Formats: sequence, structure tokens, C-alpha cells
Amino acid sequence: MKHIFSYLSVFAIVLTMSCKGNISEDVNTEKLKSQLISQNDIERIEPPNWWIGFQNEQLQLLVKHTNIGDFTPSISYKGVSIENVSKGDNSNNYLFIDLKISESTSAGQFNITFKNDSEEQLIAIYELQRRQKSTEDFIGFDSTDALYLITPDRFVNGNTGNDSPLAMEGQPELLDRTIDRTNDYARHGGDIQGITQHLDYIQDLGFTAVWPQPMLTNDMKKGSYHGYAITDLYQIDPRFGTLKEYQDLSANLKERGMKLVMDQVANHCGLEHWWMKDLPFKNWVNLQDNYEKNIKNWNWETTINSNHRRTTNQDVYASTYDSDGNSQGWFVASMPDLNQRNPFMAKYIIQNSIWWIETAQLNGIRQDTYPYPDKAFMSDWAGAIMTEYPNFSIVGEEWSYNPLLIGYWLDGAKNKDGYDSNLRSTMDFAMQVKVVEALNEAESWDKGLVKIYEGLANDFHYVRPKDIMVFPDNHDMSRIFTQLNGNISNTKMALATYATMPRILQMYYGTEILMNDFEKPGDHGLIRTDYPGGWEGDSKNAFTGEGLSDDEKDMQSFLRKLLNYRKGSKAIHEGKTIHFAPFEGTYILTRALDEETVVLILNKNEKPITLDLERYAEIGLNGKTLKNIITEDTLIWKDSITLNEKGSVILTTKHK
Amino acid sequence: MKHIFSYLSVFAIVLTMSCKGNISEDVNTEKLKSQLISQNDIERIEPPNWWIGFQNEQLQLLVKHTNIGDFTPSISYKGVSIENVSKGDNSNNYLFIDLKISESTSAGQFNITFKNDSEEQLIAIYELQRRQKSTEDFIGFDSTDALYLITPDRFVNGNTGNDSPLAMEGQPELLDRTIDRTNDYARHGGDIQGITQHLDYIQDLGFTAVWPQPMLTNDMKKGSYHGYAITDLYQIDPRFGTLKEYQDLSANLKERGMKLVMDQVANHCGLEHWWMKDLPFKNWVNLQDNYEKNIKNWNWETTINSNHRRTTNQDVYASTYDSDGNSQGWFVASMPDLNQRNPFMAKYIIQNSIWWIETAQLNGIRQDTYPYPDKAFMSDWAGAIMTEYPNFSIVGEEWSYNPLLIGYWLDGAKNKDGYDSNLRSTMDFAMQVKVVEALNEAESWDKGLVKIYEGLANDFHYVRPKDIMVFPDNHDMSRIFTQLNGNISNTKMALATYATMPRILQMYYGTEILMNDFEKPGDHGLIRTDYPGGWEGDSKNAFTGEGLSDDEKDMQSFLRKLLNYRKGSKAIHEGKTIHFAPFEGTYILTRALDEETVVLILNKNEKPITLDLERYAEIGLNGKTLKNIITEDTLIWKDSITLNEKGSVILTTKHK
Repeated sequence: MKHIFSYLSVFAIVLTMSCKGNISEDVNTEKLKSQLISQNDIERIEPPNWWIGFQNEQLQLLVKHTNIGDFTPSISYKGVSIENVSKGDNSNNYLFIDLKISESTSAGQFNITFKNDSEEQLIAIYELQRRQKSTEDFIGFDSTDALYLITPDRFVNGNTGNDSPLAMEGQPELLDRTIDRTNDYARHGGDIQGITQHLDYIQDLGFTAVWPQPMLTNDMKKGSYHGYAITDLYQIDPRFGTLKEYQDLSANLKERGMKLVMDQVANHCGLEHWWMKDLPFKNWVNLQDNYEKNIKNWNWETTINSNHRRTTNQDVYASTYDSDGNSQGWFVASMPDLNQRNPFMAKYIIQNSIWWIETAQLNGIRQDTYPYPDKAFMSDWAGAIMTEYPNFSIVGEEWSYNPLLIGYWLDGAKNKDGYDSNLRSTMDFAMQVKVVEALNEAESWDKGLVKIYEGLANDFHYVRPKDIMVFPDNHDMSRIFTQLNGNISNTKMALATYATMPRILQMYYGTEILMNDFEKPGDHGLIRTDYPGGWEGDSKNAFTGEGLSDDEKDMQSFLRKLLNYRKGSKAIHEGKTIHFAPFEGTYILTRALDEETVVLILNKNEKPITLDLERYAEIGLNGKTLKNIITEDTLIWKDSITLNEKGSVILTTKHK
Repeated sequence: MKHIFSYLSVFAIVLTMSCKGNISEDVNTEKLKSQLISQNDIERIEPPNWWIGFQNEQLQLLVKHTNIGDFTPSISYKGVSIENVSKGDNSNNYLFIDLKISESTSAGQFNITFKNDSEEQLIAIYELQRRQKSTEDFIGFDSTDALYLITPDRFVNGNTGNDSPLAMEGQPELLDRTIDRTNDYARHGGDIQGITQHLDYIQDLGFTAVWPQPMLTNDMKKGSYHGYAITDLYQIDPRFGTLKEYQDLSANLKERGMKLVMDQVANHCGLEHWWMKDLPFKNWVNLQDNYEKNIKNWNWETTINSNHRRTTNQDVYASTYDSDGNSQGWFVASMPDLNQRNPFMAKYIIQNSIWWIETAQLNGIRQDTYPYPDKAFMSDWAGAIMTEYPNFSIVGEEWSYNPLLIGYWLDGAKNKDGYDSNLRSTMDFAMQVKVVEALNEAESWDKGLVKIYEGLANDFHYVRPKDIMVFPDNHDMSRIFTQLNGNISNTKMALATYATMPRILQMYYGTEILMNDFEKPGDHGLIRTDYPGGWEGDSKNAFTGEGLSDDEKDMQSFLRKLLNYRKGSKAIHEGKTIHFAPFEGTYILTRALDEETVVLILNKNEKPITLDLERYAEIGLNGKTLKNIITEDTLIWKDSITLNEKGSVILTTKHK
């Protein structure tokens, strides 16, 4: 009997039919036919479809079906050949079929016929599609972009019809199968439609890309609203919507000139992942024995969690004990650690990523918990993607304040051990915290603004500083307004700094309206608060401005001006950077390209201060008229400038 | 009239006569003759002599004499030619003569004859000596070494006869011309003889090299006991002794198989340096105008001090304003900043260093304030030395906790800007502080011993970690015992850690007897306290043990055992390193080479703790007998080990 997940392959084909693109009517007709006959005999084949025209002609299908290990597959389709067939060593219910799809193969469908010694026959229909656009047209995110990070369950409930989908009913005792907005760790009902409905708002704020936390199925018992405990790597979580809705979101963004970044997780899955009940290999997940113990008698002790000693990835002195403990331990007890050293698992993950890029026409991937999987695999994974999509972007999450580690993961880094990550971007937790320290600390020789100055000085080490992603906060840390102790001018200074430095910019939904976690600082549920206006009946609505305080409206307006300026500013995207060591409680960062110079002045003085501009002569602004991008006032840069109040001033030479 | 400094060239030649080496009787006889006639007509020629047989055939003489600018020099000596003659643009009292000393030149003396238009003639005698040993035999310090850093004025007053030398009498109102042991910032009388007399003690402690703070003349008005305000770069300060005594110290060390490291300062000189009263070039020192103002009306305001923004050396965003402010500003107002961008100054400094290496048969140089001089020059300087002495060592002082900067200065670093420092060693202020934090902090996920673990993990970045110099403290920071709040077991743990990690080791005199600065933490005068037993009548004597407390004796014994083991330990010198992430308040670092394994266990638990050794199986010690290098107890490494008290345990497989 098929369980709730097994309808995926059909599901995908049906939805693909109506997605936008250059698919000819003929192909659609073929698909319709295939749909009719695709009530096929096989429980699960993954990837559920594939494409012609990849550089890599290899494809490995995971076939899951009761006793499929007793069957031999065959295919009769021009250009497609079976190169190898493997079984798992832990279950007779899996086959792994290595196909070669030659360059000359045409798009179309074919049967995979499985026969056993008893002459039983099973048939699966498989489809190779034509790709919608050329490989170079998958344009990644870069320093021209500002990404809006969203926790989908908490942003907008755009479709109450999917709050508790049919497929997930029947076990109401499971927290995650009902909506409970009073519980910060339960599902609240936000979804894909909610995002799509508010793209005007997001775009108007000046964002150019959207990064929603993972929206694949997390059919866990509790606490999976965040999306990182994936239980089906080929399925949009029905509580978020459908594959078509996800594809529509992508298409809608593309029409606006915006980008979609998918949050993926190569390190682990959710404990309720379908394969956990019938694992194909003895080493499909790391420390599998612990899972066996866990499933019988759930407790944290029997799972060996990761030691989280992430430096073992680089440390030439690290013991194998610690190194394995980092990469093979479980991230948390509810998330089994995938063993990417198993070559079938490795291929599975790589193909899954490519399937999503192609299916959802992605611009980029944010890869979770980057330093936890096998690092040789991660290089292969990113390499495989970048080979197929040379203009694509991947950003990896290494939560480290150490620029050495951030730099290590960037592709092209001259690492002593020869490691090349193939990773275009890493996250800049180091710079994130330096800006916060700079603003929270009182000024002294080595405190305060010097933290930004010396933090940015570390850029000399990075292969491409502007490909690193900086952010005021994210879904795992206190809101920036909370980190800055509720100080509005400090928050504006921080946002202005992140937005003008040579980086890719990412912000978390709600930063624009001073969302915070003062009540329980650092509490994940609270950090990921429902966005006001996202639920019917919300008394406060950040989309319309209804019920927002003056401070919230002011911050929304500030960020809108800042990001919309940034969007069109080549100086910020790729200009030359010059900055000046902190001086009497001020710090000046300049970005310049051609005729455009942007000057960021951070001023921590509560009393008026006058700066002699001679100090900054080398930026070549003497006598020029500059506009304040927030107040739209203009001034002539000459002799001196007086700053009347604490805060940020962002000036530009680019104005009418 | 010759002032007090002008006897140098004679002085040097006389002393060189009696130094040990392969100088033939003939040459000595020649020298004696030269001495007799060397009451020559020229006030000052530097370098005062040179050698044949260098790779670099160029030599530039600085000639100082009243109106020498009106004279033309000539030389008649086989293989020596004048290539160029230059004048300063600020004084007629200097000539710079570029000589070429061809490969075939013989050692010997010759006249330099100066004539002017009025047919006046001046004669200087110059000597080219034969080098004492081959260039490869100048063996630098490395990870086999433990350096004993000494503040010579504060160690031992071995010769009271030089406490107030003849040349420096006559201005008793100058603090630095009298001895005042009640004043922490006055001269106390320690000297070269004091060091030489106690080499047995230093060697017995297990040190293999001595690094005294600068011993060149600091004829300043006050506060120059530390040696970094040099007023004559070719003269041993008469209060420390004579050149011969310095050479004898070197020879004495060599006979013991020990090494001498000279502390040099390329960045600045003392305000009373002889040339400050008659500067050869308008740009001989940076911000020379400020000197002119200073000399008339001494005050700190008219000197523009360095902004100390050392990151400008690496920072690709640094403004020229800040960059110049770092390298051209004065280190302090009493130390004019030498302008190494003046090619005559550059040659002067390089030749000065080579002169001292050859004259004193040095093993290495410690270069002060490394990130302050012009960095292109510093690369040239170190490059020139390393070309002549390929096995030599130079360690540069960059006071930074940032491994990126430490790594940048190491020669062979793959710096993005292509900079190669030619510097074999840098100082590890980062690791110094990590060990202190590790011991002072209570254990938690990211505090305590993890600071050592993650600090050492950064070694992946360094070209050659074992060529970096680590130290518990030095002359510019609180004593390690003070940094560790007077905790003896923590101090032992710190010393054991520094001594076993893959580094060159440096310690400061007095660490072995718990010298401290509790009274005024961080006070330089107090840090550089007189060594007990160094002055006649001292009631306490650390050399004999008289008057030492039990704790002091115990630490002396601990360090003696530790360093003497280290001296013979190839595993510590160059073994493979494996360490284990902190576990229940313990941290284990292992070093292994061939049959020798050294295990350092740091244990912060006050109560007994038993460690399951299975965790450490990979170090391959199961069943082996190990000896504790301090207690000399032995144990069998099997199953588990119980640590009964807080502290360090250092075990080795190397024992009878």
C-alpha cells in the first residue's frame, strides 16, 4: 500500500504540465497521456524525471519497491542505456540504476521494465524533458542583490485551505499537523501563496531576491515549522502549497527581475524521513545504530550528536575522533546525519539539487550547516552544480566569527591543503557581529567603530569579498533591533553599514518594522514571529501600515530608501572601497565607481561635531554637491561638515 | 671637535682584534698599525668597516664631516671602486659613497682620500676584513630553541665600573646618566657582563638562546633603560659594556651550543640620535618638520605620533591618510620615525644589520615594531639579510591577535597582494592571549580550554607554524603570573602549553621565579623588575636559591625540567601534532616523532576525574609506559587515567 508520500512522481508530472515555459503542446499532450498511465507499478523512483542536455550524461535512479532487489531493469529508448545496477546492502526494496543519457537523446518518455526470475514484470514510466532555457541563463545572486529571508510558516497565511492538508490529517495528536498560533514552536499557517501575494511589498522595499527557509515536506511530529527536518526531498510541504505554487513564485519573481534562492540541506534529514523506516544501506545515515535504538526508545542520550567542532574541517592537528564527531554526529537528535561518503547518497543529493534548480528555475541555493557534511562531498556537490550552471550562486552557512574559516570555504581560496569548495559565497557572521559590537560598545582605542574598520580590513584575505553575504541578523539569532538594545539610531547605522559595504546583502523579514525578541532574547520561536498583517484579522498590518508605530513606519521608510538606492548603485555593487580609521566617534566608508561616490558617515556623538574634510581629501569630493539618500537634502562637500546628531548619514554624488 | 660618539670607528677596530676567529696574525698586525694611524681626519664613517666575500658587492659609506660636501673622495685599492658619490640635500656635512667591492678583492686596509677645490686633503682609513666563517654557518633560531628574553639594565649588574661611564658623565641632571634603583624608569646598572656571568644558570634552566633587549647606545635624557631609543646604531651602550664584551657574550654562548639574538629597531631612533642635530636629507626622518618644532619646544602635541593603525599594511581599503599615518607617524614623541623610503636610509639600516651579524656572529635578529616601517623596505631588509645568511632567523614583532596578520608577515605566505616579507618568524600574540583566556575563563562551550584548541586550529593558515614564536609574556605586557591572577597551577599549565606546542619558545627573565606586577599591573617599570641576586647585597638570590619562597623554587624546578626535556625532544621540535577538543574540563595535546610521543594533559577539574582512554586510541599509546617529565613517575597508558588534581601532566614515551 502506498503511504502518504508515494504520490510524488505523479504529482510532479501533473504540475509540470501547467508551468510556464517553452514546453510545446505536443509534449504536454504526451504528458497527459503519461499521467493516465503513470499509475505505474513502482512505489517510488527518484529523481521523478530528468532532462536532456546536461554536461553530465550520468543519471542514477533510486527505485524503491517491495523486493525490487529481485528484479532486473531494462530500458529501450534511443540514447539511454543502463550502465550499472546496484542493490542496497540493508534492504531488498531498493535498486540504484545508473543510466547514460547520451548527447543525442531526445526528450520523451519511456518504460523501465523490471523482471524477476519468476517472470513477474513491473513497469515504470520515466520522462526526459527538454530544458527550458540555456544553462548560462541561470543567473545567481551577487553583490547587486539584497535578499529577503523569510520563515514561510510565519510570514503570511495566503491560503488557509492548506493549513492542515488532507494528506496530513488523521493524527491530530501531532503538533505539526494542526495550526496553533499561540505556540511559538507549532505551525502557524504561512505559505507560498502568502509570499507570492506580497512580492509587490518586498520589491517596493528594495529587495531583489527572496530566500524562504526550506519549503520541502517536514512531516515531523513537532517543531518542524522551520523546515530543516526534511522528510521528503522531492516534495513541497503541502502546508506551504504545491510545486506549481512554488514554480509560480519563481516565475513571478523572474518577471519582476527578482531572484529565488532555495534553502537546501545536504547534511541531514528529518527523523521521519520516509527512508528511515527502510534504509537501503547499512551506512545510508551516519551512526545508523543510534537511529535503530532511537526509534524504539526515543531519547537524546542514545543519539550521538555532532560535537559541533567545526574547526576540524581545517585543523591539521584535529584528531580523527573529533573530526568524525563533527561530520558524522547528528546535528540534533531529530535529524539523522546523511552519509555523503556513501556514493549513492552523494549522487542522490547532487541530483536532488539539480532537479530543483531545473524544476523551479532557481537563481541560487543557500546550503544549510555547511561545515557538517563530508567536506570532500560538499566540494563535489557544489562543483557538479557550478559545472552545469556556471552563473549560478550558492552560499554556504558557516557560523563562524573567524575570517580564516569564512575565507577557507570560498572557491578559489589558496588553501594550504588544496581544498577548493566550489562555493561562490559564504556567510559573514564575523562582520555581522563586528557591526553590532561597534555600535554597542563605547568608543576607545580598540572598542567601538574600530570593530567595523578592522573587520573590513580583513577583506584583504578573501578571494572575493563582494561575493560574501552579510546580514544584520537571521532566523537563528536575536533580531538586530534586540542585539542593538532597542536603539533605533544604532539600528539605522547598522543597516546602512551592512547595505553599503562590499558584500551581498541579506535581511530577515520584519527588520524593516523593528521586529524584536526582547521578551525572550534569542528564543527561536519568538525570533520567527508572525509578520503583522500576514493573518486575517491581524490588528497591525505592516503591508498597509495600519497600526504601525511611528518608529516602525520610519524604519520601513528608511530601509526602503536605503535599499532602493542600493539597487541602482553601481558604486555599492562593485565600486572601489576606501575607509578611514575611526576619528572622534565617527567612521567614514566610501564606495566609488565612475561618477558615483557614496559616502557613509557613522557618527556616535550625541552632541554636534564638525569634521575637517581635509582628512578625507583623497576621495576627491571637494566642492561637489552630495545628496543625503534618506532626507534628500543636499550639501556641498567643502572645508568641513557638521553632524548635529548621532546616526548615519549616507551621501551620494548621484542625483539630478 | 669630536663629540662623545666619534671614537666609534677606532673603537670597533681595536676590539675586533681580540675577538675569536680565524683572523691571521698578519691581519692583526695590520690592524694594530691601522689603529695607530686611524686617528684619521674624518669625524665619522659608517659602517666603520666591512668584509669581503658578500654576495652583494655594493657598499654605501656614510661619511660625516664638516663641509665634506665640498670634497671629492678617491680610493686606490685593487678590486674596490667608487661607483657613485651623493650629497644630502639638507646638510653639507655628509657624503654617501657607493663602493663596488669585487669578488676578487683581498682583505686589507686602504685610504679614502678627500680633496676639495682649495686642495685641502682629508684621509680616512678603511678596512675590509675576511669573514670568520662561511655564510651557511650562521644558524638561526628555530623550534628547537627556547629563548630567554632579558632586559639587560634589570638583569644583573655584572660590572659596577660601567654604571656611569666616563663618556656619559657631566650631565648628572639627566636621569639616564646616573643609577637610581628606586626609580623604575631610571637606569639600574645591569649589563652585558651580568648576562655572561650567568649563562650557566640560563643554560641549566634549559634555555638555548638569549635575546637581550637592545644594547646599543640610548643616550637619552630619561626613560631609555629599555634600549629602544637608539642614539648610535654602531655602538654598544657604555653602560652595558663594550663591543668586546658583546662579542665575548656571543662567543661564550656559541661554545655552549647556545645562540645570540639581537634586538634591532629599523623603525625609529632616539630623539637624541647624533644625526638629529644635523640631518643629511630633508626626508631623513618622517615628519621632520615636527622634529624641528619639537627640539625647540619639546611637547607631545607638536609631534604627530603614529596612528598605530597597523591593519593599513594589509587593508586594501585603507586610506592613504591612515596608511601614511601608521608608517610615517612617530612611534612616540621621543623616537623620530626613520624614513626608509629614502634610499640612503634604507641602505644604512640594511648595512647596519649585516654589520652586527658579522661583527657579533649573531644567530638571529628580533626586529622591533615590525608593522610600522615602510613595508616594502622591510621585505628588502629581511631579503638582503637572508640572501647573505640563508640559515639565519629573523622574528618580527607584530602585536596583533589576528592570525591573518601574523600569517601575512611570514615569508612564503600566499598573500593576495603578492607581498613576501622574507621574514622567517613572527610573534604569536594571538596564541599568547588564547592560552591565558583558556585558563582564566570558566569552562563552557566557547570559553576556557577551547580557546587553545581553536587557537591552534588556526595553524592551518600558516606557512610554517613551527617557525612562529610563542611566549607567556614579554617586556611590554603583564607578567604571566599576573595575567593568570597569581594562580600557580594555571601558570604551570600555561608554560607547559607554550613549551609543547609547535612553535619557537620565548620566555622572559624571571618567569621561572614567578616575577609579577601585581602592585601596578601592566606598569612597564615594574614588569622589568631587577632580577633578585643581580645586585650585590640583594637579600634574595634566584641564582643561588637564597631567599626564594617554596613556590618560587618549585616553579624554577618545574621550568628547568620542562625546558630541559624540551631541549632534547624531537617530538616537540618537529613532531606531528594531534589534539583533542576539550572534554569535561580537560584538553589533550600530543606531539610525536618516531618512537617518542609527548602527551600534554591540561586538567581544570578541582576534583578527581577519570578519562576513558578509548577516546584517544588513535595516538597509539595503548599498553605503553609513559613517564611524567616533572614528577618522573611512570604509568601504563591503558583503559583509563585518573587525574587527581587540577594542573598539567606532561607524559613521554621517551625514558629508560
